[in-house]
Amino acid sequence: MMAEPAAALGIPLRLLAEAEGVSAAQVIVDQIVGDHTDLADLRAVTAGARVVTFDHEHVPTDHLRALVADGVAVRPGPDALVHAQDKGVMRERLAALGVPCPRNAIVSTLADVEAFGVPCVLKTTRGGYDGKGVWFVRTAADLAKAEEPLRVAAETGVRLLAEELVDHRRELSALVARSPSGQAAAYPVVASTQLDGICHEVVAPAPDLDPDLAVQAQQLALTIAGELDVTGMLAVELFETSDGRILVNELAMRPHNTGHWTQDGAVTSQFENHLRAVLDLPLGSPAARTPWTVMVNILGGPREQVGRLYDGYPHAMARDPHLRVHLYGKDLRPGRKVGHVNAYGDDLDDCLERARHAAAWFRGDLGDESE
Amino acid sequence: MMAEPAAALGIPLRLLAEAEGVSAAQVIVDQIVGDHTDLADLRAVTAGARVVTFDHEHVPTDHLRALVADGVAVRPGPDALVHAQDKGVMRERLAALGVPCPRNAIVSTLADVEAFGVPCVLKTTRGGYDGKGVWFVRTAADLAKAEEPLRVAAETGVRLLAEELVDHRRELSALVARSPSGQAAAYPVVASTQLDGICHEVVAPAPDLDPDLAVQAQQLALTIAGELDVTGMLAVELFETSDGRILVNELAMRPHNTGHWTQDGAVTSQFENHLRAVLDLPLGSPAARTPWTVMVNILGGPREQVGRLYDGYPHAMARDPHLRVHLYGKDLRPGRKVGHVNAYGDDLDDCLERARHAAAWFRGDLGDESE
Repeated sequence: MMAEPAAALGIPLRLLAEAEGVSAAQVIVDQIVGDHTDLADLRAVTAGARVVTFDHEHVPTDHLRALVADGVAVRPGPDALVHAQDKGVMRERLAALGVPCPRNAIVSTLADVEAFGVPCVLKTTRGGYDGKGVWFVRTAADLAKAEEPLRVAAETGVRLLAEELVDHRRELSALVARSPSGQAAAYPVVASTQLDGICHEVVAPAPDLDPDLAVQAQQLALTIAGELDVTGMLAVELFETSDGRILVNELAMRPHNTGHWTQDGAVTSQFENHLRAVLDLPLGSPAARTPWTVMVNILGGPREQVGRLYDGYPHAMARDPHLRVHLYGKDLRPGRKVGHVNAYGDDLDDCLERARHAAAWFRGDLGDESE
Repeated sequence: MMAEPAAALGIPLRLLAEAEGVSAAQVIVDQIVGDHTDLADLRAVTAGARVVTFDHEHVPTDHLRALVADGVAVRPGPDALVHAQDKGVMRERLAALGVPCPRNAIVSTLADVEAFGVPCVLKTTRGGYDGKGVWFVRTAADLAKAEEPLRVAAETGVRLLAEELVDHRRELSALVARSPSGQAAAYPVVASTQLDGICHEVVAPAPDLDPDLAVQAQQLALTIAGELDVTGMLAVELFETSDGRILVNELAMRPHNTGHWTQDGAVTSQFENHLRAVLDLPLGSPAARTPWTVMVNILGGPREQVGRLYDGYPHAMARDPHLRVHLYGKDLRPGRKVGHVNAYGDDLDDCLERARHAAAWFRGDLGDESE
């Protein structure tokens, strides 16, 4: 989705695509097919580039350091990005900064997990994504669930993190853009709804959020961005606890699903501000253009529906001429994020209804029923 | 600029580019380099396409008819497009429809021009663009100016049209999108400022426009779109006469410079609605998102400034974080349109100042002066 503002701003992109015809390869002319874990491929795509950036965190830290040693401007840099790649490193650093986090500890044995206490959640420190690499241990009887991830951790050397299950009212997300020269812009704090670790819905701004807590969340995100020397977008996913505190859940250093609402709801989208930030151009305003924006992801339902996604257009567009549709050029597969819709306006309930209806329609949940 | 909404909507584009690396070729992956006046090239790029459309009017009408005979869905179709290609055909048809136009006549000799009366403007019926193919005959002493275009018309068979010089308050533009099934959406009527036949500035909506005249302009555009069976965007450029009438100046059947404000100022941009219309998808809302939007073109100044355009970014973006910048990946050359800026907000004077400042800065008019 960075391709759209790059086209508008006349910024040439070169893509390392994991395969021909993938989403980004459909819209970026200058592309190389290769493997983001292969240093030779990384060197091929970054040669001569003014700046290198990412739309995921999975490029190995050592390869990024090698690129930096080659003289490539990697943004965010490896010393920042490692905090989004390794949850263990992230927790240690945030603790050192005094940033409020769920209670957590690295665990190596079942006894460690027992000592940490249940209920808890176990997370692989590297490589987890969209609910993968996460195990819930809710009762003592569940302890056996920890055996498999502990074994994998021991074998791979990828550490396992135990975290308390936070009694939370909801999840929030604070996004900031930050440039190498230190300019930073904080977007309004949003509320996100997760199902099975996958983001389903975002409301901007978070409804009924205590203004002090909103400022605290933005300040926290700005502090983290500054202290970790983040360049580009930083998403700080937060728990709003039932007793009115915020705790950091996860960090991402790229345009993030909880910022997709900005494409239609903010003056400057997160994708444009990510590009501006990594190029050290002045940032665009992160202000909302409208009282409410609701983003709902389009996820594949239980059935494989190759080519069926676009069948949703005539109804969705006719029902709601204000609806903003973003599809990623992917086929509908169970559980796969293939697009999202944004609905904005003055009335939150209206936005929620419009966005949810459209997303359900695209993913086929409404079947052949008309209304 | 259609590439941006096409990416968002997951609509695959295939481009016929006049040369490698031209503006559109920088952002559309699937491309063929060829000549839009060569039927073989047209057949190569349109083979297998669901719909064929244009970003200019210069594909020969006969070639379009050949494509239609091949079974290609050409939108707008040749019978509609000819009215944007041939000003003589356009004037005859609008007269038959009773649409108010400046007094006009086809002229073949100096005596015809004299009989038509001066002052007048002579226009080549085909191939004119951005002030080219237009000659002003302001006084009887100017009549000799008509000799050259009359000679060219006689030699080429491209007819010459004489039109009265309309005493007008300003120029307006009424844009509509229309789909093959007949759905149509009218954008707010805008005011445009032309210098030497080139659009410099657009204010949306047209300030202080009589609401009855605005409705009349929209109805006129909808009528023309319907009667001519236009598919896609139709721009009707109008004179608002000093005595409060509107007369049709020109027609364009594609996204038009007077609609660039819609990228940031309307719910659905003209580029997205052009795509939706030619694909016969329901149209998006053409409503304004904000009280005022001002578009100012970035035109090359007197000097060639290859590569200098992007120097404008740091200042323009820092001065106005709400500014929306659209560059076309072209170098600054004297008189060339290389981009535009949009400024929107609640206060018209503020929008005008911001957009004019930024455009002047990009084109280098402000030189090295800071403010």
